This record gives sequence, C-alpha cells and structure tokens, in this order.
Amino acid sequence: MSYFENYLNANKAYVDLHGNKHLPLKPKTRVAILTCMDSRLHVAPALGLALGDAHILRNAGGRVTDDVIRSLVISQQQLGTREVVVMHHTDCGAQTFTNDSFAQQLQRDLGVDVEGQDFLPFDDIEASVRHDVNLLKASPLIPDDIVISGAVYDVDTGRITEVN
Amino acid sequence: MSYFENYLNANKAYVDLHGNKHLPLKPKTRVAILTCMDSRLHVAPALGLALGDAHILRNAGGRVTDDVIRSLVISQQQLGTREVVVMHHTDCGAQTFTNDSFAQQLQRDLGVDVEGQDFLPFDDIEASVRHDVNLLKASPLIPDDIVISGAVYDVDTGRITEVN
Repeated sequence: MSYFENYLNANKAYVDLHGNKHLPLKPKTRVAILTCMDSRLHVAPALGLALGDAHILRNAGGRVTDDVIRSLVISQQQLGTREVVVMHHTDCGAQTFTNDSFAQQLQRDLGVDVEGQDFLPFDDIEASVRHDVNLLKASPLIPDDIVISGAVYDVDTGRITEVN
Repeated sequence: MSYFENYLNANKAYVDLHGNKHLPLKPKTRVAILTCMDSRLHVAPALGLALGDAHILRNAGGRVTDDVIRSLVISQQQLGTREVVVMHHTDCGAQTFTNDSFAQQLQRDLGVDVEGQDFLPFDDIEASVRHDVNLLKASPLIPDDIVISGAVYDVDTGRITEVN
C-alpha cells in the first residue's frame, strides 16, 4: 500500500476546481525561486503566487548545485525568467548532521561508502543564503543582469525576511 | 526593482493566516515528491497536501540527478521518508530543446561552452518517468523497501495519472 493512492484520490477534487485552461509555458512574473524540500513550506501561498507565476526549484537545503544551475539555465535561456530568489529556512534538516557523521551512518545502515561526498549541510542560515547567492553571481552561466535576492523563511511563523 | 518586493508584501497576509505553530521536522506522510519546477504546477493543492505532510523536490523536468539522490538520502536517512513519487508533466520545457541546439544557443548568447553537458531534455513523458523511477530503483543509496511510484501531471486539467 502506498500513500500515492491517497494523492490520486485527493487530486480528483483538485481537477474539478482546476477546470480546463491552458496557461503559457513561460512564467508570468519571470522569477525562479530556489528553496528547500521541507514539508512545512508551501511556496505558492507563502509568496502569493498564482498558477503560472514562477518557477519553483527545491532540494535538500535549497542549495545551489550543478543541477540547480542546469535548471536555472533552462529557466532563463529557454523560458525567459530574469530573477532568482534563494530562500533557506529555520529548523532545516541540513542543520542536523555533518558530512562525516552522515558518511558513517550511511556506511553502517546502507553499506555504501560516500566518504568525500558533500551533502551540503550548514550551520548558519544567513551565511548559507549569502554563500549560495554568491555562487549564482559567480557562475558564467548566470548573466550579470539577472536580479538575485536572498531570503529566510521562518517555519513557525510563515514569515519571509530578506537577507542582504 | 525586483519582483521579490511583491512577494514580501504578499507574505505579510500569509503570516496572519499562518499563526505561530511548530510542526515536526519529519514529514507526516513519510513521502518525498519529485517533480518539475514548472510554474503551472502547485504541488500541495494538486495532491491534497497539508503543511508538514511531504517533502517536495523540484528541478527542470523533475529528473533524477545526483542532487536529487543527495536530497532523497537526507529525506530518507535523516528525516524518515519511506516513499517517493516521480511526477513529470505535459507541455514541459524540457521537451523544447535538444542538448546540441541548447549548447549552440548558450555558446552564442552567453559565450560559454557546455558541449557534452546533459541538460536532460526528453521527448516521451511516460518514458522519462519510467527511466527516472528505474534510476532510483538501481541506486545503492535508495533502499529496496522504499516504495517508488511514477505519475504524469496534466497542466491543462490538473489531473494526475499513474505511470506503471
């Protein structure tokens, strides 16, 4: 039994609400938001996004990785976005381990050697946001006229605060 | 002027609705959903997710990459998820280019040589879902007892269909 079956049932009600409409492939506000996979963050309502407004990229931590650069290049060069928001959050799972402790755990529990692999944990949220904003600014694949902002989301209050 | 300022304003209303509450770090339904960054897909309402229910991972195409494996290992081994849903969608931006054409475009417009890099475009949605489900099943970092489902989201109707 999978939980996926429940989603399929819930989706039936959503289809009735959705109706049949074709929105453009290119996001209306020309923004891509990069944030964490955390379950307590629902990006669209927290930022006031309507369907079709913005690309949403999510991984563990909301970190800038090669895959995020790949996605942003497609977002910008194929689909016309001109702005990026990097948003990390309080009480993040990426603050619960170190690479060394996690490598030991995976060796013990999965029998897989991941020593040397960076799972991108962090301690200081604002520092991680600034680090990732700077990675984007330094990338030759992200044009200099792309507007890049940093932010922190508070999972307890829902509040977003800009990081300068 | 950035669009991000608008999000900060919209977020003020969300904070009032949200109230102050602390939900657990570990997702309630123990599911991680991998899907595309597309602006016309709002994952939580489409699947009936409440705040705190499930991890949501998103990149260009909803493709399985090293960064997705990194995120899923954290999701499963640190945060207790036991199920993955891989969901691609109709009218995807990853269907609008080939690696060769995109490399030529980036060389011309950004002056960057990305020849040989795979931006993970695809033609057939169901085939790409099956391909990515199989990548997860083959990964030594994803335990065999993790339940993995595949699905397609229709951006015009909001309907989710299982891919077997």
